[in-house]
Amino acid sequence: MSVFRYAGRTARMENPIIRQLLRLGQREGVISLAGGIPAAETFPVPEIAEASQRALDRLGSAALQYSPTEGLAPLRAYIARRRGVAPERVLVTSGSQQGLDLIGRVFLDEGDAVLVERPTYMGALQAWNVYDARYREAPTDAGGLVPETLPKEPVKLAYVLPNFQNPTGSLLHGDRREAVVAWASERGVLVVEDDPYGHLYFDAAPPASLQSRWPEGVLYLGTFSKVVAPGLRMGYVIGPEEVIHALAQAKQAADLHSQAYGQAILVELAKAGVIERQEERTRELYRRRADHMLGLLEAHMPESVEWSPPKGGMFVWLTLPQGVDTLALFERAVEAGVAYVPGSVFAANGGLENALRLTFVSVPEEQMEAGVRRLAQVFNNLHKY
Amino acid sequence: MSVFRYAGRTARMENPIIRQLLRLGQREGVISLAGGIPAAETFPVPEIAEASQRALDRLGSAALQYSPTEGLAPLRAYIARRRGVAPERVLVTSGSQQGLDLIGRVFLDEGDAVLVERPTYMGALQAWNVYDARYREAPTDAGGLVPETLPKEPVKLAYVLPNFQNPTGSLLHGDRREAVVAWASERGVLVVEDDPYGHLYFDAAPPASLQSRWPEGVLYLGTFSKVVAPGLRMGYVIGPEEVIHALAQAKQAADLHSQAYGQAILVELAKAGVIERQEERTRELYRRRADHMLGLLEAHMPESVEWSPPKGGMFVWLTLPQGVDTLALFERAVEAGVAYVPGSVFAANGGLENALRLTFVSVPEEQMEAGVRRLAQVFNNLHKY
Repeated sequence: MSVFRYAGRTARMENPIIRQLLRLGQREGVISLAGGIPAAETFPVPEIAEASQRALDRLGSAALQYSPTEGLAPLRAYIARRRGVAPERVLVTSGSQQGLDLIGRVFLDEGDAVLVERPTYMGALQAWNVYDARYREAPTDAGGLVPETLPKEPVKLAYVLPNFQNPTGSLLHGDRREAVVAWASERGVLVVEDDPYGHLYFDAAPPASLQSRWPEGVLYLGTFSKVVAPGLRMGYVIGPEEVIHALAQAKQAADLHSQAYGQAILVELAKAGVIERQEERTRELYRRRADHMLGLLEAHMPESVEWSPPKGGMFVWLTLPQGVDTLALFERAVEAGVAYVPGSVFAANGGLENALRLTFVSVPEEQMEAGVRRLAQVFNNLHKY
Repeated sequence: MSVFRYAGRTARMENPIIRQLLRLGQREGVISLAGGIPAAETFPVPEIAEASQRALDRLGSAALQYSPTEGLAPLRAYIARRRGVAPERVLVTSGSQQGLDLIGRVFLDEGDAVLVERPTYMGALQAWNVYDARYREAPTDAGGLVPETLPKEPVKLAYVLPNFQNPTGSLLHGDRREAVVAWASERGVLVVEDDPYGHLYFDAAPPASLQSRWPEGVLYLGTFSKVVAPGLRMGYVIGPEEVIHALAQAKQAADLHSQAYGQAILVELAKAGVIERQEERTRELYRRRADHMLGLLEAHMPESVEWSPPKGGMFVWLTLPQGVDTLALFERAVEAGVAYVPGSVFAANGGLENALRLTFVSVPEEQMEAGVRRLAQVFNNLHKY
């Protein structure tokens, strides 16, 4: 008898396709438009060095001791002030990914149905597969989730990325936000509003959040990964106090608390106005890169390839004719020197083979043209394969 | 219908007794011998400030970007070198608590039996209650777990704290280590060896680890919380590569990776020799405080109270006559100005009401005498209650 007798859920955690893809895309000479990571040149390195020193000067060993599971009080207060809620409604998490995990842990029984967008963020699927979730999908278009397609069948959670969605870049229209909240509140469905990209708008700030429209029924996930630095692993959940309490109990069993030092550093960055400055800097850079990429797509892509220009965020979503399989094409693309993320990775229940996700933020502008040209070449040669 | 329909496991996460206790023990004027936290005056604050700066100088934005789930390569290499294993066998975790959670997640199906010591660390119970574990208990004495009491019934995991156990302070004898490994390997039981206190010995280093005796069947949990600083939230699991792979998949869904910056800081501390220096400094301080407390217990405790002098770690375990209930006594102790942790908190299946845990590390030496005197007074007055 083997000494490793894994739990049933462990088989659901394995995702060999993505791992293999990521390895392939890291080959020498391949221009990766596959990344989901922010542009490292936006990270405020000297400001973080100073904030680290200030945090230790100010707090001394208290910045390095065990600290409250809910988060450091001044960080909770900062987040609460920015979001217009009471600090008791804030739980600091080790990145948004932990927020997704804790929500699954606290709410999902085996086989519970979760409504997700089609396509949706694969990290949420990874988090909730652990708890054996089933998924119902609601289609999206350039205006985000289409409310008319919301299911009549019962679901326990509804997972929505309203702002510059991952992977499509779509922005959920204000009237659709109302419709989603109406649908959920009528049915008693808890809404999980995931908002990593809300600050990264190109023209205008997004419409009011789902949470502001229905504070009692929406859990809002925010993060410092996209506008400060992901390596700090700091995110947060905002929700009704009762839920924050349950999530904190779950977090205590998961990792006791998030890093005290990193939280103290964020407090110092907030005091110095660095976070707001970062939001501005980052959206300016991303707006420029998005413009650049959209111009290149216009110039080089064959007519059969379609996309909606994103109004913020990090991604553009390309749709090819039915019958094209971007997963099958991936190796050919890598041979041609370019990588992307195949659409099927974002499909909760399969499909979306004829789509793919590109990022415009983490690839140097001088490489972007070569990347898009190579990809266009692969598509132009489709008839040959 | 309420919008909050929690999962079944959520009810198992709630632990109101401990929460209430901790609040009570924080009252003004109460000397807390209840803590499970290291002495903050040992934290290398200036060294961490310097290491933070060096990490950013050296790595720049790479210290702040998304990083590998398994951990930063130089940190894995340092841990591997210290423990005499290959780096591929190391997974960096967000504290040891996350290691416990990930092990539960990957191995425990509903109702699986876990062997634990009696008493055992309550954080492990919290972690595995989430996965609906059942517990079988093996009694311990001053020489640690008693191998003759190990069960014949099947268990999936065996959880052992061989070095200066939490809560008893006991050290598992070398011959008993052999016996535990023999029992586990004969039955194909995966052993979880939790070792937060191994560096905190007062006289001699502990006998060779369980893992070194059976590398294929033992998962070793280590942490930087007790000798560097818990606020960094950095621990690790060492195990067979196959298991490390499964734990890393689970970790990816849980929080993607542990903080890159904190890991880079530990690498700099290791290079500068700070970690080894910390181990020495900390054990010297704790040896002195343990001596002080043991002397006070000798001087003040009534004869009916028993303990075994710990040879390392942070705790001493007091046993009172049968019939005394330290949980029921707790409020009275707080009124008398002293707090401890009641023994029943460490009992997986109930009992141990006549015991309690004291720490000797996080209470200032000048307060320790008053704390022990107050506690002795409560025990001397037992006949009055």
